[in-house]
Amino acid sequence: MTIDQILEANADKYEEELCELLRIPSVSADSTHAPDVRKAAKWVADQFTRLDFPTEIVETAGHPIVLASSPPVEGAPTVLVYGHYDVQPPDPLEEWISPPFEPTRRNGNIYARGATDDKGQMLTHIKSAEAWMAVEGKLPVNVKYIIEGEEEVGSAHLEQFIADNKQRLACDCVVVSDSSQFAAGQPAITYGLKGIAYFELRLHGPKQDLHSGTFGGAVTNPANTLCKMLAALSDEDGRVQLEGFYDDVTPLSENERAQFAELPFSDETFMTQLGIDGVTGESGYSTLERRWARPTYDINGLWSGYQGEGAKTVLPARAGAKLSFRLVPNQEPAKIAAALRAKIEELCPPGINWELKEFHSAHGVVVSLDSPYMKAAALAIEAGFGRAPVFIREGGSIPVVNTFKEILGVDTLLLGWGLDDDNTHSPNEKFSLADFHRGIKASAHLWQELAKI
Amino acid sequence: MTIDQILEANADKYEEELCELLRIPSVSADSTHAPDVRKAAKWVADQFTRLDFPTEIVETAGHPIVLASSPPVEGAPTVLVYGHYDVQPPDPLEEWISPPFEPTRRNGNIYARGATDDKGQMLTHIKSAEAWMAVEGKLPVNVKYIIEGEEEVGSAHLEQFIADNKQRLACDCVVVSDSSQFAAGQPAITYGLKGIAYFELRLHGPKQDLHSGTFGGAVTNPANTLCKMLAALSDEDGRVQLEGFYDDVTPLSENERAQFAELPFSDETFMTQLGIDGVTGESGYSTLERRWARPTYDINGLWSGYQGEGAKTVLPARAGAKLSFRLVPNQEPAKIAAALRAKIEELCPPGINWELKEFHSAHGVVVSLDSPYMKAAALAIEAGFGRAPVFIREGGSIPVVNTFKEILGVDTLLLGWGLDDDNTHSPNEKFSLADFHRGIKASAHLWQELAKI
Repeated sequence: MTIDQILEANADKYEEELCELLRIPSVSADSTHAPDVRKAAKWVADQFTRLDFPTEIVETAGHPIVLASSPPVEGAPTVLVYGHYDVQPPDPLEEWISPPFEPTRRNGNIYARGATDDKGQMLTHIKSAEAWMAVEGKLPVNVKYIIEGEEEVGSAHLEQFIADNKQRLACDCVVVSDSSQFAAGQPAITYGLKGIAYFELRLHGPKQDLHSGTFGGAVTNPANTLCKMLAALSDEDGRVQLEGFYDDVTPLSENERAQFAELPFSDETFMTQLGIDGVTGESGYSTLERRWARPTYDINGLWSGYQGEGAKTVLPARAGAKLSFRLVPNQEPAKIAAALRAKIEELCPPGINWELKEFHSAHGVVVSLDSPYMKAAALAIEAGFGRAPVFIREGGSIPVVNTFKEILGVDTLLLGWGLDDDNTHSPNEKFSLADFHRGIKASAHLWQELAKI
Repeated sequence: MTIDQILEANADKYEEELCELLRIPSVSADSTHAPDVRKAAKWVADQFTRLDFPTEIVETAGHPIVLASSPPVEGAPTVLVYGHYDVQPPDPLEEWISPPFEPTRRNGNIYARGATDDKGQMLTHIKSAEAWMAVEGKLPVNVKYIIEGEEEVGSAHLEQFIADNKQRLACDCVVVSDSSQFAAGQPAITYGLKGIAYFELRLHGPKQDLHSGTFGGAVTNPANTLCKMLAALSDEDGRVQLEGFYDDVTPLSENERAQFAELPFSDETFMTQLGIDGVTGESGYSTLERRWARPTYDINGLWSGYQGEGAKTVLPARAGAKLSFRLVPNQEPAKIAAALRAKIEELCPPGINWELKEFHSAHGVVVSLDSPYMKAAALAIEAGFGRAPVFIREGGSIPVVNTFKEILGVDTLLLGWGLDDDNTHSPNEKFSLADFHRGIKASAHLWQELAKI
């Protein structure tokens, strides 16, 4: 039998095994489920021990990490598969059509908490190894697995573990399947993520709230000042007005722009989905370019003075905001923070003191489209899904991708088998069973393609 | 005996009567005190009936209004004295040095809730009439009294009552003593009040909060938009940027500016009191000019997105603000509202819907310094306090002053006998007993001076 044939022969078994895993309510956020989380770790570890892979359940101060590795193949590339076996809480329970931990098939999908995020997607890379072991007795490359149980609660112990186990985790590239295809029937490889620099700005004016009649117009109003400052951080063309903000920006290549433009994306559909009557942003760029590959500036929160019903004639003593910049590769969060401080200092009028708190930051990452790993992944996906993937980027950050880049020095291939409407983190989470099997096939072909590098 | 002599002879009696009134806990906001509020109304009415003034306790849907009038004097001017016999709640009780409803003398002051606001100040205009009645058997002018019991809870039934009793309340001017001198030893007449136009602006973006990574930079952010809009409503010189905003502004006269400049006011002291390291405002004007006589724009409240601890990467669906313009005489609130609507419409980008709610508005008022009533009041104050008053304005609005102007068509003389540190609305409210007696004397002279008009 060929690999593809064995995958077909075992399709039912794979689904049954997925259901087994989905029945374990491994909710990492809920301490009453700690035994279930451990049970899921054990279930995953058993998958590997059955293949005779060296396997370890590593304890952390939180939930355990499962490590395993395929039989060594001298001279072949080494791939690190990252995934997670923990799931989001299922609430609100009453909105589930079928119970979250009783996996149910409907319309070609399997419905359960964790179906797509990430039990179903993660499992594809184990089943593909199983098929290779059955047919060939080995894999054509070295595959290491790191499957954690704290992804849904912030991966608190992962970064330190990776830093402490650099040698053990050393690899040529990382593979993560924990995201979505571009659209149903259109697989994608996410080759870029934005970075972020997130801040809280607090302005302090008079020592207490004042009567806006008695003092207004003469005492600098922190709320007015906050609006002036935050407004001054971007211009009418949607360009961020911090010194040197665009200096290090890696521009979109003509090739990327052409690829984005070819994607089946329409502003009209996008607007309808969000309930808005127009889009705006940095001038000279399309919506997808703005979302995926241009740095942005968003106010995430605002507060000052009186927020209740009716009118209160107060000149507020304080005003504050949360604001963040999404960064593209090559932009340095620390430089952005320094430029923001300089700008605020420049804009701050007499009568106001300011305070800037720096929250998390991350670099943007992008994997070269010319990377041999990327090309291997594209061929594998085409083999698995029957259609070549499109290459997309994403405006969010995935911290673990930065961790792998910064600590292990390697790029991550983001191969999403899910769909945007899979209801991750919501009731009625689902995963297409067809995509589950296509994902296994793509993964099996990925080992093959990577072996050719 | 002259009037002045009888005032001196009765000083102790006046203080004792003030204490009687102060012992009645006429807290209008607290329904358990409703009998006390009524008791205070009765006490005030008794003051008038003892003088044989026609007196009425008028019921309202809330607390009663006390009406009275001195014996008619054919051909003489008619003055309407407005005051209130209700008081603020005394909380926090534990911060009072002596109990709020046990009036106590310390350092030349009487300490009690309502001492200055407004029982003590209001009573001066009754005791002055009593002295005239004792000496002359009549007053030299027609004095009408309207003493309400709902000032501290918004005077809900006053405006309608005035509108329904225009003839009965008809007068040449109104006298109100419910404010402060410019400083200790420096009496003042407040001849101008600002108006106001107060709004709530709400911006609506996408139908729900979005991930700022996935959507930021492409979906118009209501918080960014709000800051842009609110910032655009004033320029770098602190000038309001609404079409025609300054067109109707009555400019400060050179005379007024000179008078303000002569007042013992220092920016440094002001800054120290408020805990600020600088002042800003409309360029070309002093702090007092900005506070008293120039229109202003203040944001009174702001809200959007995430206001909690830490970071949340949200692109908020909504943002809102409370904002108000303080207006000077001749500016029309309705015109300002229309200009604001036009400006918001002009500034509103695609992807945002806006909603503007208009709260209360009031016209600014100013009484001519050349008014004969003003001149009479100045002479009376000089006689009572031994020092000529300064003429000041105030940045707040006093709704009843607008009501008298709009319904009865008359100006109000704001003759404050209190001091800025009297702790009105706070624990340890006080009133200088010397100023109480000076106020009575000034009032007695006011009737005389008004009779000369």
